[in-house]
Amino acid sequence: MVSNVQLRPPSGFRDFSPREMILRKKILGIIEDCFIRYGFDPIETPAIEYWETFEGKYGEEAENKLLYRFKDPWSEKWFALRFDLTVPMVRFFASKALPIPFKRYHIGRVWRHERPQRGRYREFWQADADIIGSVFPEADAELLDLTIYVLQKLGFRNFVVKLNDRKMLRGIFEEELELRDVLPIYRAIDKLDKIGLDGVREELKKLGLDSTKVERIIDIISEERSPDLMLETIQNRFRHNENVKQGVSHLSSIIDFLDNKKKYVQIALNLVRGLDYYTGPVWEVVLTDIRIGSIAGGGRYDDLIFLYTGKNVPATGTSLGVERVIEAGIELGLFNLNTETYTTIYVVSLSKNAFKHAWKLAMKLRDTGFSTQVDLMRRSEKKQREYVSKKDIPLIIFLGEKEIKSGIVTIYDRRTGKRYTVKEDAISDTLKKIL
Amino acid sequence: MVSNVQLRPPSGFRDFSPREMILRKKILGIIEDCFIRYGFDPIETPAIEYWETFEGKYGEEAENKLLYRFKDPWSEKWFALRFDLTVPMVRFFASKALPIPFKRYHIGRVWRHERPQRGRYREFWQADADIIGSVFPEADAELLDLTIYVLQKLGFRNFVVKLNDRKMLRGIFEEELELRDVLPIYRAIDKLDKIGLDGVREELKKLGLDSTKVERIIDIISEERSPDLMLETIQNRFRHNENVKQGVSHLSSIIDFLDNKKKYVQIALNLVRGLDYYTGPVWEVVLTDIRIGSIAGGGRYDDLIFLYTGKNVPATGTSLGVERVIEAGIELGLFNLNTETYTTIYVVSLSKNAFKHAWKLAMKLRDTGFSTQVDLMRRSEKKQREYVSKKDIPLIIFLGEKEIKSGIVTIYDRRTGKRYTVKEDAISDTLKKIL
Repeated sequence: MVSNVQLRPPSGFRDFSPREMILRKKILGIIEDCFIRYGFDPIETPAIEYWETFEGKYGEEAENKLLYRFKDPWSEKWFALRFDLTVPMVRFFASKALPIPFKRYHIGRVWRHERPQRGRYREFWQADADIIGSVFPEADAELLDLTIYVLQKLGFRNFVVKLNDRKMLRGIFEEELELRDVLPIYRAIDKLDKIGLDGVREELKKLGLDSTKVERIIDIISEERSPDLMLETIQNRFRHNENVKQGVSHLSSIIDFLDNKKKYVQIALNLVRGLDYYTGPVWEVVLTDIRIGSIAGGGRYDDLIFLYTGKNVPATGTSLGVERVIEAGIELGLFNLNTETYTTIYVVSLSKNAFKHAWKLAMKLRDTGFSTQVDLMRRSEKKQREYVSKKDIPLIIFLGEKEIKSGIVTIYDRRTGKRYTVKEDAISDTLKKIL
Repeated sequence: MVSNVQLRPPSGFRDFSPREMILRKKILGIIEDCFIRYGFDPIETPAIEYWETFEGKYGEEAENKLLYRFKDPWSEKWFALRFDLTVPMVRFFASKALPIPFKRYHIGRVWRHERPQRGRYREFWQADADIIGSVFPEADAELLDLTIYVLQKLGFRNFVVKLNDRKMLRGIFEEELELRDVLPIYRAIDKLDKIGLDGVREELKKLGLDSTKVERIIDIISEERSPDLMLETIQNRFRHNENVKQGVSHLSSIIDFLDNKKKYVQIALNLVRGLDYYTGPVWEVVLTDIRIGSIAGGGRYDDLIFLYTGKNVPATGTSLGVERVIEAGIELGLFNLNTETYTTIYVVSLSKNAFKHAWKLAMKLRDTGFSTQVDLMRRSEKKQREYVSKKDIPLIIFLGEKEIKSGIVTIYDRRTGKRYTVKEDAISDTLKKIL
């Protein structure tokens, strides 16, 4: 009778057990709390969009190789699972008349047909904060400040914020290499982490660049230094180039606003970010004590909204990679998976009659706010206690004929081994003290 | 340059604005808090499952007409978007060795190709609590108690919990009509709300039943009464039928446990629930003061886990229809969409120099826990205040040269029109008092 069923989710997709979810909810709660403190408000968009919504927004590789696209069986229209939270938000913004700056956060899942590996899945969660409507570095600075603040709140200490500006880099390429079409070069550079410098060399050669130019590009993108010195050097060298001027000025302002968070920032000319829609400053956060790739990233995308509205509306956003943040935090000992259940109290019933009392006591405790369980299996005391152990529920209240008659119950704290004997009507107060 | 982009999501799919999300998060927070109080823990499963995971679980109509099925472009395997949270949870349970009872909650989106209408969408949220492993009425009773508790906490007062038992109904059909295969009849009865009694008559005739039998079924399913009388009547009439005996006994126990929540319950013989997997008690909650269909429902599905594991593991679950709960609550005036933003404080800067102070003050306030915004658009005081009005942010702090020199700032409460003049280092305390 057992049908040939799959007990596992498809490759790259995951189940989360209570223990994992309790941790995830805690982490996502901290991130959300930070977003709210910085004045961001939530929106939600569908998991599915029309294919046209995504088309031409991310670049060829993402659209052809990574996007989950399928034909709606009923309308025969092409749908796609959302690839990120940015493009759906832009579509949302374009469909409404909202006051700017529009500051929204969105924590939700996205789908990409990546090769599954550590910290990389086909269904994963992003936590995004974006600011629509401001062309000023204040907006980028607020997002970077927020990103660093979140990571600090989560307990991370050793990380670098790699910062670059596509405009500035374009200017450098214009001057050094007389290059105009930089998008293919950005795409090659973006693969640096995956394929290394030699790989990037190959990619650049494939684009038809001669080896002198390739080596110049490799030289340029090998630079990574603290902001003040780096920006000054670039400024001095290319001061006549308008793109460099704008980029340096924008980055300098951002860094000024960062104040005592500036120490985390490095200017990294090899950072371009993979997606086509970025136009100005781009950033990624990398942990320095473990190798897990970037755990956050973002940048300015001033032209994307034009594609939907025909109006120039500047925009910038930051995104935390939830999966990597969690995996890195566990590895660094910042978070743990030790909590098996939210339940804090189990009322053990020692007889059938006692069960009815246990049921009522549980209802009372729940109404006071305590997460409480009772026996739903008509089990012996021993079996009930075994369940409590397996679930690692911290407190047990024992209820038998004696307790019912006397109105005095025993609370046992499994964590400390201590016992508390209290009157039934004083249970809540005692529990509050113990927990 | 504007590409031919869709600004709206596909039909039946929705965007949620900050105002809608702030309400949704509040409602889902209350539901989740109740689930936790009753001792349920969260799990998460993918949006996508292998098609085989769903096949043969819900019945033909659901599987052929409502399930979003598509071929994975890479593996060529058939995938499907999850239709409910029950079957994925059962697959999850079957893949692990978990202590029972396994009590999990899951609040998440599901997809069904329904005809979009009021309270019915193609992408919608369910909030489920299930108990795996207990065959006893205690488990069903706990879920019904929880369902009623959640609705009470949300502020609902006028509702009926319609309760039936598929085993009991099968017994009645066996006795009254000598029917064995009741599933097609259940499916016909399930359409009652949509097609009315005459519609059900037609459906039953299509099944080949003669008009006497059809009328007997119509008579039986027209009964809806308070539990005690109803169950006694059924018990007396069919006491020799084993299915009736078991069903009545199970329902009676459930009702006993419900205690002072019993007043909400009616036995409704026309309630069968659409999905094939239900085996015992089934329930739905209907509001009595507005017509919006059922806002919650659930039941026992003792055979579903066998399909995955080959082992008999009893299970029962309840589910709240998030969309209808919210829409009904708004209509009844229990909830409102008046909150436009989480932000409580806007620091208006009256000069460029003041902006740098505003930025630092905002950072300090954020770190104290206040949701704070500053000007990111280099706007005049007037424009900043217009933004505050549009977003309906309650408190404004003014920061100009005078305030910076004196170290004394003004807090303006837009809700009351009151002004507070405080020293900068006492701002947090004053804000706590005001909010």
